Amino acid sequence: MLSADFISALEAICTARHGAAVATMDAGVDEGNLAAGVVALPASTQQVQAVIRLCRQHKVQVVPQGGRTGLAGGALSAPGQLIIDMNRFDRVGDPDAVAGCIEVEAGATLQAVQDACSKVGCSPGIDLAARGSATIGGMVATNAGGMEAFRCGVMRNRVLGLEAVLPDGSVLNDLTRVRKVNEGFDIKHMLIGSEGRLGIVTRAVLALEPLETAAATALTGFATARDAVEAFAMLKAAGGLLRAEIMWRPYAEVTAAQTGLEAIPAACEGDVLVLFEMAGDSHDTAAEKLQDALSELPTLQGGLVAQSESQAADFWRIREDSFAVERVWPGGLWYDVTVPLDRLDDYTQGLQARVQAVSPELFVSIMGHLGDGNLHITIAAPGGASPVKDRCDAAVFDRLKDMGGSISAEHGIGLEKREAFAAHGDPSRQALTRQIARSLDPDGLMNPGKIFV
Amino acid sequence: MLSADFISALEAICTARHGAAVATMDAGVDEGNLAAGVVALPASTQQVQAVIRLCRQHKVQVVPQGGRTGLAGGALSAPGQLIIDMNRFDRVGDPDAVAGCIEVEAGATLQAVQDACSKVGCSPGIDLAARGSATIGGMVATNAGGMEAFRCGVMRNRVLGLEAVLPDGSVLNDLTRVRKVNEGFDIKHMLIGSEGRLGIVTRAVLALEPLETAAATALTGFATARDAVEAFAMLKAAGGLLRAEIMWRPYAEVTAAQTGLEAIPAACEGDVLVLFEMAGDSHDTAAEKLQDALSELPTLQGGLVAQSESQAADFWRIREDSFAVERVWPGGLWYDVTVPLDRLDDYTQGLQARVQAVSPELFVSIMGHLGDGNLHITIAAPGGASPVKDRCDAAVFDRLKDMGGSISAEHGIGLEKREAFAAHGDPSRQALTRQIARSLDPDGLMNPGKIFV
Repeated sequence: MLSADFISALEAICTARHGAAVATMDAGVDEGNLAAGVVALPASTQQVQAVIRLCRQHKVQVVPQGGRTGLAGGALSAPGQLIIDMNRFDRVGDPDAVAGCIEVEAGATLQAVQDACSKVGCSPGIDLAARGSATIGGMVATNAGGMEAFRCGVMRNRVLGLEAVLPDGSVLNDLTRVRKVNEGFDIKHMLIGSEGRLGIVTRAVLALEPLETAAATALTGFATARDAVEAFAMLKAAGGLLRAEIMWRPYAEVTAAQTGLEAIPAACEGDVLVLFEMAGDSHDTAAEKLQDALSELPTLQGGLVAQSESQAADFWRIREDSFAVERVWPGGLWYDVTVPLDRLDDYTQGLQARVQAVSPELFVSIMGHLGDGNLHITIAAPGGASPVKDRCDAAVFDRLKDMGGSISAEHGIGLEKREAFAAHGDPSRQALTRQIARSLDPDGLMNPGKIFV
Repeated sequence: MLSADFISALEAICTARHGAAVATMDAGVDEGNLAAGVVALPASTQQVQAVIRLCRQHKVQVVPQGGRTGLAGGALSAPGQLIIDMNRFDRVGDPDAVAGCIEVEAGATLQAVQDACSKVGCSPGIDLAARGSATIGGMVATNAGGMEAFRCGVMRNRVLGLEAVLPDGSVLNDLTRVRKVNEGFDIKHMLIGSEGRLGIVTRAVLALEPLETAAATALTGFATARDAVEAFAMLKAAGGLLRAEIMWRPYAEVTAAQTGLEAIPAACEGDVLVLFEMAGDSHDTAAEKLQDALSELPTLQGGLVAQSESQAADFWRIREDSFAVERVWPGGLWYDVTVPLDRLDDYTQGLQARVQAVSPELFVSIMGHLGDGNLHITIAAPGGASPVKDRCDAAVFDRLKDMGGSISAEHGIGLEKREAFAAHGDPSRQALTRQIARSLDPDGLMNPGKIFV
């Protein structure tokens, strides 16, 4: 437990909550995240520095938190630790359409940044379902991905400049607003994706993209992922492709059935369904362009272009209601991997076979972001039983690294993937991760236990 | 000088050259680069490892070299050091158009990679004038930029996977072929742009872009950089903009006069000239598209769309013959900075005024890559006299960091920019650069003296 001295020193620096005040913050939904029971709410970089220095002095471990939307346990805390909640860092600067960038504070939500950018016809070039809660700082710390990564990159590619408080309480002040900078090692790239172990992000400059205001959506069917990848390449070459989300049929059938939309996936044949979203000057021109492009696809096994916004919303519901799988197949194991586009069939067919070898009763759901080969996989047993984790892990991770893929695509390692990282990560990358963390944070106070023990 | 023991141990590992054999390699043009006088030419990652371990054992400093096309002195060597020449690492893998990537060895030239990719209708998404000599390893080590960075990113954004021999002789084996990877700190981003101080790049996986095979070029004039930036944004939004190179008039007039092309810049008005290159299905459709887009520009002060490839080549000669400035104004100081696009007029006008205050006789030449605000600046005195470096440095670097720009855009720090980096770089970034180098290379054997002392 934190001492009364520490808490009173903390309260002299910034707003803090502890005891019952923490319990009421999120009414129990965040039990693991808030287990530390003491939360600092700094509102300036200076306050974050002071809190970090206080923690060093008292050897108190720190868990930074943003929107707490991560799925890998990167924000879990324990009694005796201090949560640094960054939500008061919520200022969003004016987007500069000429320079193509915006400066934002770490606690601003993605949605708030998107809204500010849209006023000048721009977008931060990244989007994900948790946009209303996920904060920029958390997205930087976890190098978030999402649906636009194939054309705009992941969070790492969106960050032009970064301010962060480092483990020794000093500040990395690298708020450049340009893309071409070669001034010594690019330290900000060490912080991006470091899951809080190298510092606390306080501010970032993000690059902007033009905002597409009108788009049309199609649901399409293909016999194989290879055909879907070929279609993706053709639609991308046609220009204006905004999104390409892939679902293997079992996933789409489960989520569609949960929302009474069974007729939609049934209208396409093939094992692989893809949602394509194409930009245009208006919905109608976009729909026409999409229809034309689809009619050129030699391998299409049925496709529907949404005729209205509400129909498009139905299509997207089938993709986005991923929790439906958990409702129908509770207790499943989830994975987040990347597979090179030339190996998707090979990998998914092998995965099915390996899981069936574990137990023929297991259900395998696969969907994800087609353009970058990022698959979200769930393996579940009937009746809410727990699948055997070791054997399912082996089935999912087998050969992934050899084919040039990744065991952890966009959700990070946190606590959940730590064993997988230790077992499958490049030994040299693991060793350097530890070495650099030790060099910058010799007392191991920054989000300890996340990524590696 | 290196001992006979060391050299015979080196020769047992791999091909090596020393003494007169080194002097004949480049017939004197590379005097500073080859001053070490001993060159190892490893042909496998294992050989690089063995050479690095031998150097550690003998405490011999190492200078890695690729195409030796850098302009910042990053490949300079001295007697007693060992050059590791990576040119035997020249294998280029088969480009995979489906997965969108290619694996190449560090000594392959950019041109060799471009040629291989073009056979499958792809491009590595990066281009620069030294393409015939610059190697992929050197481009990774310096985080090269070039003309396509505004749409495809800099080298950092092109690298999906990396293999490198680290200062302790171990190998970072991170040859992923995908974009979404979150597995601990992204060590490869620490190596990219580290100018040889953290390891020697041996192999990389690069992302591919579709190759544009037909294009048209226009030379355009604008009163201000602000107008040029606005035109850039409009042409980019029209789709297919491949390049946008900016030249302030004094630069274009000097290079045009050297090649008898004075009539070309004279056909445009305004202080700021821009070369736009636009893709199309054929030269004619591209030229038509470019002409249409230019006709919509409210601020255009004259423009010429090249009617043939040879006319386009003349336009490009004016931009690319940057050594013409050195011939007419010998002994000048050169700079490579980045300015946010909303500050280009502000910065360049201030620069002119500051240089005139140093001496009204000084000539200022400015050109660069419009889309990312990367300016190449030369300041020269009449009659080959040397401008006062300290005062010119101050004139160029003044306020750059405050406006979110960079003192070193794409050529790196090397030896040439070391003082500027020490004076203007973020102190925290400098400190961490040193700390991480010390942690990974405690004996300081890897390209010592480059970036920082």
